[in-house]
Amino acid sequence: MKNVLIVNGPNMNMLGHREKDKYGLLSLDEINDIILKYAKTKNIEVSFFQSNSEGNIIDKIQTSIEKHDFCIINAGAYTHYSYAIRDAIASIEIPVIEVHITNISKREAFRKTSVIAPVCIGTINGFGYNSYLVAIDAVSKLIER
Amino acid sequence: MKNVLIVNGPNMNMLGHREKDKYGLLSLDEINDIILKYAKTKNIEVSFFQSNSEGNIIDKIQTSIEKHDFCIINAGAYTHYSYAIRDAIASIEIPVIEVHITNISKREAFRKTSVIAPVCIGTINGFGYNSYLVAIDAVSKLIER
Amino acid sequence: MKNVLIVNGPNMNMLGHREKDKYGLLSLDEINDIILKYAKTKNIEVSFFQSNSEGNIIDKIQTSIEKHDFCIINAGAYTHYSYAIRDAIASIEIPVIEVHITNISKREAFRKTSVIAPVCIGTINGFGYNSYLVAIDAVSKLIER
Amino acid sequence: MKNVLIVNGPNMNMLGHREKDKYGLLSLDEINDIILKYAKTKNIEVSFFQSNSEGNIIDKIQTSIEKHDFCIINAGAYTHYSYAIRDAIASIEIPVIEVHITNISKREAFRKTSVIAPVCIGTINGFGYNSYLVAIDAVSKLIER
Amino acid sequence: MKNVLIVNGPNMNMLGHREKDKYGLLSLDEINDIILKYAKTKNIEVSFFQSNSEGNIIDKIQTSIEKHDFCIINAGAYTHYSYAIRDAIASIEIPVIEVHITNISKREAFRKTSVIAPVCIGTINGFGYNSYLVAIDAVSKLIER
Amino acid sequence: MKNVLIVNGPNMNMLGHREKDKYGLLSLDEINDIILKYAKTKNIEVSFFQSNSEGNIIDKIQTSIEKHDFCIINAGAYTHYSYAIRDAIASIEIPVIEVHITNISKREAFRKTSVIAPVCIGTINGFGYNSYLVAIDAVSKLIER
Amino acid sequence: MKNVLIVNGPNMNMLGHREKDKYGLLSLDEINDIILKYAKTKNIEVSFFQSNSEGNIIDKIQTSIEKHDFCIINAGAYTHYSYAIRDAIASIEIPVIEVHITNISKREAFRKTSVIAPVCIGTINGFGYNSYLVAIDAVSKLIER
Amino acid sequence: MKNVLIVNGPNMNMLGHREKDKYGLLSLDEINDIILKYAKTKNIEVSFFQSNSEGNIIDKIQTSIEKHDFCIINAGAYTHYSYAIRDAIASIEIPVIEVHITNISKREAFRKTSVIAPVCIGTINGFGYNSYLVAIDAVSKLIER
Amino acid sequence: MKNVLIVNGPNMNMLGHREKDKYGLLSLDEINDIILKYAKTKNIEVSFFQSNSEGNIIDKIQTSIEKHDFCIINAGAYTHYSYAIRDAIASIEIPVIEVHITNISKREAFRKTSVIAPVCIGTINGFGYNSYLVAIDAVSKLIER
Amino acid sequence: MKNVLIVNGPNMNMLGHREKDKYGLLSLDEINDIILKYAKTKNIEVSFFQSNSEGNIIDKIQTSIEKHDFCIINAGAYTHYSYAIRDAIASIEIPVIEVHITNISKREAFRKTSVIAPVCIGTINGFGYNSYLVAIDAVSKLIER
Amino acid sequence: MKNVLIVNGPNMNMLGHREKDKYGLLSLDEINDIILKYAKTKNIEVSFFQSNSEGNIIDKIQTSIEKHDFCIINAGAYTHYSYAIRDAIASIEIPVIEVHITNISKREAFRKTSVIAPVCIGTINGFGYNSYLVAIDAVSKLIER
Amino acid sequence: MKNVLIVNGPNMNMLGHREKDKYGLLSLDEINDIILKYAKTKNIEVSFFQSNSEGNIIDKIQTSIEKHDFCIINAGAYTHYSYAIRDAIASIEIPVIEVHITNISKREAFRKTSVIAPVCIGTINGFGYNSYLVAIDAVSKLIER
Repeated sequence: MKNVLIVNGPNMNMLGHREKDKYGLLSLDEINDIILKYAKTKNIEVSFFQSNSEGNIIDKIQTSIEKHDFCIINAGAYTHYSYAIRDAIASIEIPVIEVHITNISKREAFRKTSVIAPVCIGTINGFGYNSYLVAIDAVSKLIER
Repeated sequence: MKNVLIVNGPNMNMLGHREKDKYGLLSLDEINDIILKYAKTKNIEVSFFQSNSEGNIIDKIQTSIEKHDFCIINAGAYTHYSYAIRDAIASIEIPVIEVHITNISKREAFRKTSVIAPVCIGTINGFGYNSYLVAIDAVSKLIER
Repeated sequence: MKNVLIVNGPNMNMLGHREKDKYGLLSLDEINDIILKYAKTKNIEVSFFQSNSEGNIIDKIQTSIEKHDFCIINAGAYTHYSYAIRDAIASIEIPVIEVHITNISKREAFRKTSVIAPVCIGTINGFGYNSYLVAIDAVSKLIER
Repeated sequence: MKNVLIVNGPNMNMLGHREKDKYGLLSLDEINDIILKYAKTKNIEVSFFQSNSEGNIIDKIQTSIEKHDFCIINAGAYTHYSYAIRDAIASIEIPVIEVHITNISKREAFRKTSVIAPVCIGTINGFGYNSYLVAIDAVSKLIER
Repeated sequence: MKNVLIVNGPNMNMLGHREKDKYGLLSLDEINDIILKYAKTKNIEVSFFQSNSEGNIIDKIQTSIEKHDFCIINAGAYTHYSYAIRDAIASIEIPVIEVHITNISKREAFRKTSVIAPVCIGTINGFGYNSYLVAIDAVSKLIER
Repeated sequence: MKNVLIVNGPNMNMLGHREKDKYGLLSLDEINDIILKYAKTKNIEVSFFQSNSEGNIIDKIQTSIEKHDFCIINAGAYTHYSYAIRDAIASIEIPVIEVHITNISKREAFRKTSVIAPVCIGTINGFGYNSYLVAIDAVSKLIER
Repeated sequence: MKNVLIVNGPNMNMLGHREKDKYGLLSLDEINDIILKYAKTKNIEVSFFQSNSEGNIIDKIQTSIEKHDFCIINAGAYTHYSYAIRDAIASIEIPVIEVHITNISKREAFRKTSVIAPVCIGTINGFGYNSYLVAIDAVSKLIER
Repeated sequence: MKNVLIVNGPNMNMLGHREKDKYGLLSLDEINDIILKYAKTKNIEVSFFQSNSEGNIIDKIQTSIEKHDFCIINAGAYTHYSYAIRDAIASIEIPVIEVHITNISKREAFRKTSVIAPVCIGTINGFGYNSYLVAIDAVSKLIER
Repeated sequence: MKNVLIVNGPNMNMLGHREKDKYGLLSLDEINDIILKYAKTKNIEVSFFQSNSEGNIIDKIQTSIEKHDFCIINAGAYTHYSYAIRDAIASIEIPVIEVHITNISKREAFRKTSVIAPVCIGTINGFGYNSYLVAIDAVSKLIER
Repeated sequence: MKNVLIVNGPNMNMLGHREKDKYGLLSLDEINDIILKYAKTKNIEVSFFQSNSEGNIIDKIQTSIEKHDFCIINAGAYTHYSYAIRDAIASIEIPVIEVHITNISKREAFRKTSVIAPVCIGTINGFGYNSYLVAIDAVSKLIER
Repeated sequence: MKNVLIVNGPNMNMLGHREKDKYGLLSLDEINDIILKYAKTKNIEVSFFQSNSEGNIIDKIQTSIEKHDFCIINAGAYTHYSYAIRDAIASIEIPVIEVHITNISKREAFRKTSVIAPVCIGTINGFGYNSYLVAIDAVSKLIER
Repeated sequence: MKNVLIVNGPNMNMLGHREKDKYGLLSLDEINDIILKYAKTKNIEVSFFQSNSEGNIIDKIQTSIEKHDFCIINAGAYTHYSYAIRDAIASIEIPVIEVHITNISKREAFRKTSVIAPVCIGTINGFGYNSYLVAIDAVSKLIER
């Protein structure tokens, strides 16, 4: 049974508490519950990690190589400038999928560029919390391949 | 039963014939077969359309509003400059999902900007032909919503 | 009696069907009717052409030199990148007037540049479907000159 | 009977005196006479104002809200950098139409951007002094609406 | 009695120790003392927080919503690139005021852009440590409103 | 008793008359009254000046060196391009404080750059008409220094 | 005997009819005749294709792989923005030579960039209709190699 | 005897009063005296004009065509953005020489571009008040020609 | 005996574990051993610090002023955007040398700019792990000076 | 019999000695021999010149006007920044053809712009040493014209 | 008696031979004669140097410090990119005046920037060969100072 | 015994004569003496070359491949624009080290980009004349490798 690490970056812990019109009504814990159950139907194990700290996210990504088969990452605002997270992803060998809740091409100019996209295998964005589930679908297909 | 129009843009008819290392070994017909079967398991009907002509793609998108519930589009190179296709997508009401076989953020500079992304509901790219299947997964989740 | 060719570009056939708050309630046929009647009061004959295809628009412009005395063009999204349409306009001798329903300087950044404006005699935009009528007024004055 | 204020910016008082090949043979007074007569045929009253001073133009625009129903403005070179005139136009409620004698998209790079266009209802340029008359036509149609 | 959280970003703990000609002679503790006393005269309670870590600053801002009525932030160098802190500020509902000791428009090019300014209510900079006191004055006026 | 010259630039005389949702309900005269009374409580004398003319504002700033101890300026749209006002401020010796009613970093791109900020002692913006009062607070602290 | 496909893009069918001072006096048919005869002297067979439609040009290029040994293309204005034609050229294996009648580096700024040049083997421009003949010379040398 | 109009723009009336290290110790009146005497030795008559107002400078330039044979202009900060003054210079026929006291290429970035230089016959800068005298020398040579 | 603090930034702890073709075969510990021995031959004491956290690196740099005479820093990806680390280096008085294992000018565009270089005494890059040793050589020469 | 001067710029004397995969196996002397023989078959005389010095190349170009009828130039890296060579070419009357061995549009960004192309009659690149022969073909056609 | 070195850069030796409409009818020798005679009337000795080689110009400038009191330089096309000549000028102590025959702000974009202007005392351009004489006038005034 | 060629570019012969505060008190000959002695202690032979001429530097670099094992280059101002020197370095096989006396990232904007860095093995700058000695240290380590 394959294991997927799901990394959430800065302010994702505020989901469901603030700006519900933009990010939806569910809290991160509630979303994680949905992901957990959905992944189980695909026979996939998931682990969760959230931090507001760029350094902690890098630490976590580095350790993932030994414990996880895949990584799904929503790096929040770090998506747009953290070349350090980019390097961390580039330094591990497991496939990493970039995920966003909103369609970032519709938002502020600074959100249109992802510095981590070029080191991920693929990107999924715009489907609300379903973006995580769709990423699980993608992982599932990568396993079959 | 919902119906999804799958639009493929210029040069997608060359899939499997040329540049197999970049785009894979399967022809567009073979990929369409896989999509058709996969969609059936999700209880989704699919229609296919491919054209090298910007005008024809716009014509097709315009007509889709009466016959289809969703649209999945891989606009090929038009992705990067066809504001006319963008306007066509913006003018219809059904949800449109942007799909790419490769991770376009890893390629030439001109491929990093999608002018149609801001009028699509979401984007999926980088998973080879699986990108289409993952888009079907996303449609499936949009239906449930 | 002078003849004016009125060319409408991509997605103008959707007028009145979609995005009515932006482009108004009238369909292209209804607008054309209004133009026809208005032109008649100015003793001007009008012909209409609409296409979503860049190539067809160029074909039409090229043939206009033998059949028309003036051309009024709303090139839609092609306004912003079709250097091919620009070259077609530059290659004919009759005066061409650029028209837009909306005030394009109020909209998205990419709509602020017209690549065809420098080869047209003049530009009129922002008056809704009246932009076409005002262009007929301009043609009328060019005839008198 | 509606009243239109016609504002001409810097150096427009030189019309007919200098650079006749670019701006035509008529002086501003002669053009104003033609406008006056033409407007009368449309049952429209016109008032004229010309100044080389940015501040005076702003003063005049501000006062126009009480005395005029429409404003037609050819802001000359201020078109390209006077955000103060832009703010003055934005602060009044009557519709303002931007007019240019020449087709500014054919000229120097700095003349291609109008900072006042986004706060005007529409723009007309390239028809020589007829641009003012065409603007009167446009006003006439706005009245009918 | 209202409570204001005062957040100081990276290297602000070096105040008074280094570069005294640029940032003044007082240490952060001495400045905090002055702020505390001044705020008391305005009947305002203040809490202080300083960290060199982007993640810790975000953690603190997130918790402020329950314990504080206002936030004054001098994000130091993070001002110019931390979209993560920007998102944290945007996600809370209490008013946040941006403060700088120096007039940042007089300094290096990279310091001229603040990525957090657009999510703050207002900005005060250039008055030395008095910038904090002036911010307290501003809070005082916001309370009265 | 110190005297402060308060300079308001173009269109500030329209305050309270137009665009009340953006600039508030009070007229410039009403705001000046509030400032006058507030300044008196701080034992500060204030003089007011408003003009739509760049040249008149420069004239006034130049004369201020003999009659005033401080200057507070809201240069309106001139803020963004008047290097001539910038030079006038740079040529006098009294401290000048830049003030804006709105948070200009939240508005149009052209409003994000202030060409006069680098020659002012400090900047205050975003607090509505309170920005002027907060500037009086800042003057008061500069006097004490 | 080798076969060369000569593709001419938008508005090349207007050669000899319009703008003779820029493009010369000969029509496309007359130029094709000259090419045909010249190629025969080099023992090379040529086929001609002209279209104003981007899609048709792509269709033709795709089919050329089975019927032709070389391709010479003058993509007209599409040269400067058609990434779709670029992808079509990249997807076939036969060598493609880019040709222009005029020296495009002497003309408008937008004509200085060719998006198809990086996928062609070489480029020849500036020799009038002789550019095609010189391209035949180049083909002849590629055959010998 | 030829007559030269010497136009000085904004803040030039502050010469000798402020920033003496940058602009020198002499007042504008003292410099004018020196110019007057020097010109007399060259048999040239000079008239002086200084204004902080862009509009007044344009008014003056326009009237110069009837009263003066040459114009020497130091447009101060207007040099860098006043396209209106540029148009005024372009609209008169007498030769205009641009002059600066300092070497503007050594100063702030915004001072490196002169929008009026392209419509002047020549430029002289960097020689302190001698720049005006050197311009008189240039006029003298233009007369001889 | 002088003491040098050697700071390594994000992902440097992955040296020797991943991307060995780019960064070499040695782990950070092995490199540190080599540095330690080499420094001893130069009579220099070295201390090592590595962290993935921007905040921790700043904390460490701030404390170095009391315990170390020199600092050698390889800030990893933070090199390219951490103005906070830049400020930390600027705030201490001991000389700091910037070091990179690879020749960063040969790599991705974003790696070509170092925001910390302008506050370091000098830079050494491109010599593999020898870059650290060469930096020790440089320290040795600075001591002699 | 016409005479052609063939100018080769910096590092062209290294052909065949270094980077053979990029520039081919032949030395410049061997290529010159091939050109000489080929030109003879076209009844054209050729002279050769190579220098690494910008000044010497300019000297040679200047003298060519008296001794040569045509010039073929491969300016090497000077192609991209030598405005001095550009001016030299512009100052002579004989036609100059720009040649490159490689397809420069496929290479580094800085090689994509030729500052000399706008003063040459035409450009040929991408055919290896055959580029020179194709240029001889072009000269031959220019002679016939 | 003071001595002035007059340095002319690349292609200035072509004056009077080519492009007479742009640069005038006189050869460099004839201009030098005029300068020599004019300088004598000002009691100034002049030496002349012209070279197409950047290196030779630098060599000459370096030696000028011992033999000349002033330098007048027309660096031709090197004006726009030779930072090496800039450094040579910066390294000597005698005042250097930059001169151009034409008004370079009226010409191609690349000619609008002078990289040597910031290290010269002043600049004179646009007066034909009189620019050199006006520079002699400027030298004369610098001597008097 | 290995031999290192040390190339110094334009104006380096002025070291110790001019701008001593920026480049130090020592002349190039004195620095060369120090390098010679230091290299001897490392058992390395050094040869010196200085020229102000780009062409001569290229000639020298080309010949170095037969006589030297390493090259250390301080290309002076050519560092920032000489793609010809870049090509020369790229065309030889021996390792080249780029050296600068000053920390170029602290200086003018144009000095921040090195066009030769990407073809060198590594870069050392900012240590005064010690930069050359540190480069010898680096060579020494490359030899050991």
